[in-house]
Amino acid sequence: MGPDPAVAAVRVAVRRVLADVPSGGMVLAACSGGADSLALAGALAFEAPRCGAGGRPAGGVTVDHGLQPGSEERAAKVVRTLADLGLDPAGSVAVVVGQEGGPENAARKARYGALDDAAARLGAAAVLLGHTRDDQAETVLMGLARGSGARSLAGMPPSFVRKAAKDGTEVRYVRPLLDLDRATTRRACLAMGLEPWDDPHNDDRSYTRVRVRHEALPALEKALGPGIAEALARTGKMLREDADALDEIADHSYAEALVSSEGIELDVEKLAGLPRAVRTRVLRKAAVQAGSPPGTLAAVHVEEVDRLVTAWRGQRHVDLPGGLRASRRYGRLLFGPS
Amino acid sequence: MGPDPAVAAVRVAVRRVLADVPSGGMVLAACSGGADSLALAGALAFEAPRCGAGGRPAGGVTVDHGLQPGSEERAAKVVRTLADLGLDPAGSVAVVVGQEGGPENAARKARYGALDDAAARLGAAAVLLGHTRDDQAETVLMGLARGSGARSLAGMPPSFVRKAAKDGTEVRYVRPLLDLDRATTRRACLAMGLEPWDDPHNDDRSYTRVRVRHEALPALEKALGPGIAEALARTGKMLREDADALDEIADHSYAEALVSSEGIELDVEKLAGLPRAVRTRVLRKAAVQAGSPPGTLAAVHVEEVDRLVTAWRGQRHVDLPGGLRASRRYGRLLFGPS
Repeated sequence: MGPDPAVAAVRVAVRRVLADVPSGGMVLAACSGGADSLALAGALAFEAPRCGAGGRPAGGVTVDHGLQPGSEERAAKVVRTLADLGLDPAGSVAVVVGQEGGPENAARKARYGALDDAAARLGAAAVLLGHTRDDQAETVLMGLARGSGARSLAGMPPSFVRKAAKDGTEVRYVRPLLDLDRATTRRACLAMGLEPWDDPHNDDRSYTRVRVRHEALPALEKALGPGIAEALARTGKMLREDADALDEIADHSYAEALVSSEGIELDVEKLAGLPRAVRTRVLRKAAVQAGSPPGTLAAVHVEEVDRLVTAWRGQRHVDLPGGLRASRRYGRLLFGPS
Repeated sequence: MGPDPAVAAVRVAVRRVLADVPSGGMVLAACSGGADSLALAGALAFEAPRCGAGGRPAGGVTVDHGLQPGSEERAAKVVRTLADLGLDPAGSVAVVVGQEGGPENAARKARYGALDDAAARLGAAAVLLGHTRDDQAETVLMGLARGSGARSLAGMPPSFVRKAAKDGTEVRYVRPLLDLDRATTRRACLAMGLEPWDDPHNDDRSYTRVRVRHEALPALEKALGPGIAEALARTGKMLREDADALDEIADHSYAEALVSSEGIELDVEKLAGLPRAVRTRVLRKAAVQAGSPPGTLAAVHVEEVDRLVTAWRGQRHVDLPGGLRASRRYGRLLFGPS
């Protein structure tokens, strides 16, 4: 008799990722003690020794955010579970969560900083994160509220690289469970005899994500029918590919239209021949290259610059954030100080 | 003292559209009697005589779907209102709503068919539709449930052309109110002394759109904060531009990669160099060109064909809907009968 189907699903997902992680260095599971990352740790502990010839080293790490009474004991309990699973090293890192950007952002920042450092210190080839398709659906839905196009709807990438602040080591993060739902990780924990911890923060409606999970998604499912989480995750994946393609094409078109990089000058005729979605990306890139801060450069600025190309009636110039302006002269679009 | 701000907003929106509609032929407002299309009709009646030198002819038409008792009297009342506003002609068209594709689709099909015919008969230059930003937000959200990428999230286009079934006349439809919200059209009706009709169907929770309007959107707004309708409409607009650009680029890349159009043969090397979002569109286009029915050709088929390009390990072929197959031979991807 094979393992429980939920356990098998989580293991297969981890196995696939292990095959892709460059050899050399251990693989770390980041584990909060919740069902998702606990199932992940269990699957990693099972798969790592069976990986390739002689297996590969695998460890587990939990982050103590120090935000709740008893968080230290909780972290110690997670470490014991990780060690019992056979992950070695199994450890916890305590962080101090700041205030900047709201509680969710501050906690995330502290958490990734600690994981970066742990991975760099241990020479880890990859850190595995337990995000599921349900987390992805929530992220896509939260991106929708920003209304800033494909990139904000693209959700979490299946893998990404960060630079550790301490020494600049590149740390690779991978999310093996993005195609599985939360119910599967919970069933997998049950079947593996692991007892997940239910973070009380997951019921705190002051968090946007918690409201999305417990209010918005159920209402969407009721109105639109079942499968909405899957549809959101699939949408996010497709829009990520769209955004990647358009960025790549825009980079190429930018280089083609660039007449002079002193002060950034673009050929208007070449710009006019581009599809609008590409041209607006090229214009945004030009403004950022000229020094406009990406965070304050809004779609409305880019649209005004676009009118210098497509609705030219002798406008003088368009002011941009960062003390810059865009102007059109002799068939060229110039980005420079105002 | 100028007009009420809501009235002014609706009039400005209609005025902008009138400036773009080709001259020659009248402009028709399609009016259900609801607040959105009633405000639209009122604004058209005001703007059309003031448009250009000597104004332009403007009429109004309502469709009697015959789905509710008293629908005929209701349509007659709308026609009187349209005539009182000064729209000429003002008329109603009765349709028989079928069953195909569910009640909403069947009603839409019958309605557009009737509007096509009316516009063709009257030689109308354009038919104006009263959809607002709130309708657009609902449409984008309903597209999300399909989970089929940018195109399904793009919402309703601001204008489009249909061919009348009777004689093939091309009929242009325009949606002037897509940037205004429903509250503005309601205020505008009040200020113009027009009494909108509240269609009881708008409270019938058996319609997906009604559930989205009254359940899903309020829940999203509660979870994510105000402005969600605006964000959804903005997202739809950006994703429409993205989808248009990617389709245009894919058409170009398809032509570039096409080695032979007998049986459709594409150059694998050229395909491999494309961004994935472009390549999958090219492969889909090739399959459709070869005769695969677009409605049954799914993303999973296209992904399998993509693996012939990007994960080639000597696979024999990929079967496609419509009795077709894709296979790779001597650096070419062939689409032909299986």
